[in-house]
Amino acid sequence: MNKKGLAILLRTRMRPNDARDLTRSPLANLVNQTLPNSDGSQSTGRLVQGAPQQRNEKLNASSNNERGYFGLSYENRRKLLELLAKEYDLNRTQVRDLIKQYLGLELPGGSDNAPSTGIEEEACLFAFYRIERNLRHALKPAYEVLFERLNTHPGGLKFLSILRADILSILAEENIVSLRALDSYLKEKLSTWLSPATLELHQITWDDPASLLEKIVAYEAVHPISNLIDLKRRLGLGRRCFGYLHPAIPGEPLIFIEVALMKNVAQTVQEVLWDDPPSPECEATSALFYSISSTQPGLQGINLGRFLIKRVITLVKREMTNISTFATLSPIPGYMQWLLSKLASQSKLSEGEDIQHSPADTSGSTFWENILEPEEERALMDASVEFTSGKNSMEVLFNLLTSPNHEWTSSDKLLSALKPPLMRLCARYLLQEKKRGKALDSVANFHLQNGAMVERINWMADRSEKGLNQSGGIMVNYVYRLEKIEDYAQSYFSTGHIHTSSNLSRYVEPLEEPQVTTL
Amino acid sequence: MNKKGLAILLRTRMRPNDARDLTRSPLANLVNQTLPNSDGSQSTGRLVQGAPQQRNEKLNASSNNERGYFGLSYENRRKLLELLAKEYDLNRTQVRDLIKQYLGLELPGGSDNAPSTGIEEEACLFAFYRIERNLRHALKPAYEVLFERLNTHPGGLKFLSILRADILSILAEENIVSLRALDSYLKEKLSTWLSPATLELHQITWDDPASLLEKIVAYEAVHPISNLIDLKRRLGLGRRCFGYLHPAIPGEPLIFIEVALMKNVAQTVQEVLWDDPPSPECEATSALFYSISSTQPGLQGINLGRFLIKRVITLVKREMTNISTFATLSPIPGYMQWLLSKLASQSKLSEGEDIQHSPADTSGSTFWENILEPEEERALMDASVEFTSGKNSMEVLFNLLTSPNHEWTSSDKLLSALKPPLMRLCARYLLQEKKRGKALDSVANFHLQNGAMVERINWMADRSEKGLNQSGGIMVNYVYRLEKIEDYAQSYFSTGHIHTSSNLSRYVEPLEEPQVTTL
Repeated sequence: MNKKGLAILLRTRMRPNDARDLTRSPLANLVNQTLPNSDGSQSTGRLVQGAPQQRNEKLNASSNNERGYFGLSYENRRKLLELLAKEYDLNRTQVRDLIKQYLGLELPGGSDNAPSTGIEEEACLFAFYRIERNLRHALKPAYEVLFERLNTHPGGLKFLSILRADILSILAEENIVSLRALDSYLKEKLSTWLSPATLELHQITWDDPASLLEKIVAYEAVHPISNLIDLKRRLGLGRRCFGYLHPAIPGEPLIFIEVALMKNVAQTVQEVLWDDPPSPECEATSALFYSISSTQPGLQGINLGRFLIKRVITLVKREMTNISTFATLSPIPGYMQWLLSKLASQSKLSEGEDIQHSPADTSGSTFWENILEPEEERALMDASVEFTSGKNSMEVLFNLLTSPNHEWTSSDKLLSALKPPLMRLCARYLLQEKKRGKALDSVANFHLQNGAMVERINWMADRSEKGLNQSGGIMVNYVYRLEKIEDYAQSYFSTGHIHTSSNLSRYVEPLEEPQVTTL
Repeated sequence: MNKKGLAILLRTRMRPNDARDLTRSPLANLVNQTLPNSDGSQSTGRLVQGAPQQRNEKLNASSNNERGYFGLSYENRRKLLELLAKEYDLNRTQVRDLIKQYLGLELPGGSDNAPSTGIEEEACLFAFYRIERNLRHALKPAYEVLFERLNTHPGGLKFLSILRADILSILAEENIVSLRALDSYLKEKLSTWLSPATLELHQITWDDPASLLEKIVAYEAVHPISNLIDLKRRLGLGRRCFGYLHPAIPGEPLIFIEVALMKNVAQTVQEVLWDDPPSPECEATSALFYSISSTQPGLQGINLGRFLIKRVITLVKREMTNISTFATLSPIPGYMQWLLSKLASQSKLSEGEDIQHSPADTSGSTFWENILEPEEERALMDASVEFTSGKNSMEVLFNLLTSPNHEWTSSDKLLSALKPPLMRLCARYLLQEKKRGKALDSVANFHLQNGAMVERINWMADRSEKGLNQSGGIMVNYVYRLEKIEDYAQSYFSTGHIHTSSNLSRYVEPLEEPQVTTL
């Protein structure tokens, strides 16, 4: 479908790059049909005020049209979004004109000059302020008007979140530069509108409406909820569940966190999920955060959990004075992926002796590094003889970890041979592997930026298919110390420093630098 | 107090124009001390994460410091805000660098060329998107970081609103260009954060906490509430009160509206406020909005009432099917001011015959125009003989209207002589006097942009001191027709068209054009 086709389909004329006109654009019309035509409790979802003829025309259109955006096929949504990104971009001619005006201005008193008088300076600055303000406005893409308008309408924020979820799926398939620019713009907008101060902390209980509880079941991302009894348990005695609600997306938490009140910080997910009945609440000394899930794929990359954990801790602490430890039992979603790719590339590199110490490429992964210790290698080779083979210990480990049905977890021999290297490398992965100065693991990064420390890693803590696939069954306890949260968050934010326990840091020797001098 | 003095007072080093550093600036420190050190229900008000030493130092400082921003005198607040506006502005060197890079880019396929292929275009656009994004960020003043951070913290939005109230008082005294730029920036931010979708409609009743009701008494701007009994009446039978609450400013409506359920649309404020007991609710056919007040001086210019009236109408309509008319009884705050200045200038102009028809200046007010009709003039001169004199009828009218204690309202003769011109000119003021295409009267502009029509003006509808001062006692009924709200709002928005009743439009003859040809 080309642009003309789209316009015909939507029975509207299009004039790109005119922000006022955007409110009469196909997308705006679609939005009118898409947003709930409110029952009256709120303003109707009509985006375009005062275009009733158009609207009636719309209502007489095909049933496809009547369902608005949701009536479009994936392919047509994609076309529409690309069109929006490309044709409702900013007005570059206007930007250029303003820029030229700006360059014509003279900065008040250069840095070396004596400061000019206040009045002169103000007069001179006036021109700057004016053009800078105009430039700020000119640099807003035309689709900003649509986003802003949508945000003011009931259902609009939710719609934008769905729109962004679609954009993210499209971008996952193909990197369309203009659509990526739109996404990054939309993400910034959403993140402003979802400021933590507008999010309301709500304790979710069995008394909540089914329509809300249903969302908890649907979106639980860490430990799927199997049935109603499971859900009731998670909201019952010895358990808590809290969610962040936004007034513009009622009846649906944007993110929720599940808490188990326990005598000790659990090491395995089994203790949390299957320890039935839970210990009496009065005996609990620990609150364990065992699951955090966000419900809106369209809000990806926006840290809604910010402050959530801290607010939950203060709430629980006030209510239950016997609770003194606040910890998580968290998955390590990126560990196996990192380890397997490390093993694969290192094993491959160790094959060809000639590139072993090649200084040609300075990117870390092309340096050969035996990531296994000698004694780990020996134990591994001994234990694996009857199961698999390989050119070297790393290939053996790779083969074991990728064997069907996680065969290695059924053999005590293999388990005890694999535990030392897997635990050690897991600590290294969590504490030392960084991307742009932040922890490579997404969950680690989440808790660290919220002010947690890495306390303990637990062997065979999650034997589920997902747990074994993600992290070889290892789970981690992050600990939140209320009085340290802000300092830890700040030092992680500014220097990337990760606070950890001595138990864990002993796994990690000083990182070896590659013995290569680059020019 | 100069910059150095401020820094000393605040015991912090200042390094302007570095956004990261702003979080350690004097204002940030002040903010830390100012925001409620939360009791734990929410994240603490600390803005600077991880600077405990500084903070402790602060707490040991003078008691003036301990109270943070609120501990500062008006003069010091002003100095601080000026400093913020001037020294935490944007980095113009960076903006210039980006601008130069931008000018080096070539626009993909000029408008006349055949469109280039998708891939080429995308590649070319990539550079644009990148620099435009950087430029957008560079154009944000450094104080944006402070605003954003504050907004995420409990109490931060309220603090920003207080900050802006201070800024507005300073600007009312003196036009400081940089502070005005800061104000305009802050206003835009606040307006984004206070999106109607985040505002919650709440019916305020006698069961609400006293801390909230107290705000209603304090902020009622139209008809002051004299005592608790008066308040209870306004929340009782035949009355409704609704407020918009924002989650970040709990327990305090940002704007509230008072409604009286009546048999007929009231013409005078006396009927609404003193008609005791009110008519039974089951007999009511009209809902009269008799007062709308906003509580935050710092949110001036931000239309919080948007959608409020419409939402209230739908709510009342659903609850009470017998109500079919929704109208206001509104003040006309700018009428007398406009009329008196018109009378003064015209009366002055009519003195000197030589400038009577001077084409030298084309601005409306310097053209002589007898704003009184011949028969109005005659009646006025006859009736006023015993009260006042003047060179012409306009001076006489001016003198009458400005006489102490509104003497003219005590004479039936004067009342009947003044009624025709005052009513006619009031209709003209409401329907024809514009500023930038919008109604000159602020209340008129508010209702018209919300989608109302001007239905009726009422003589001697508010005999209070304030009512006589503002509008010679005249009040106006704006009517909201639910099915027309959006169309009216849209046509007012796009063309400035004001919908009115035939009753009212008869007052207004076609506006006479000045008989002057300008070159």
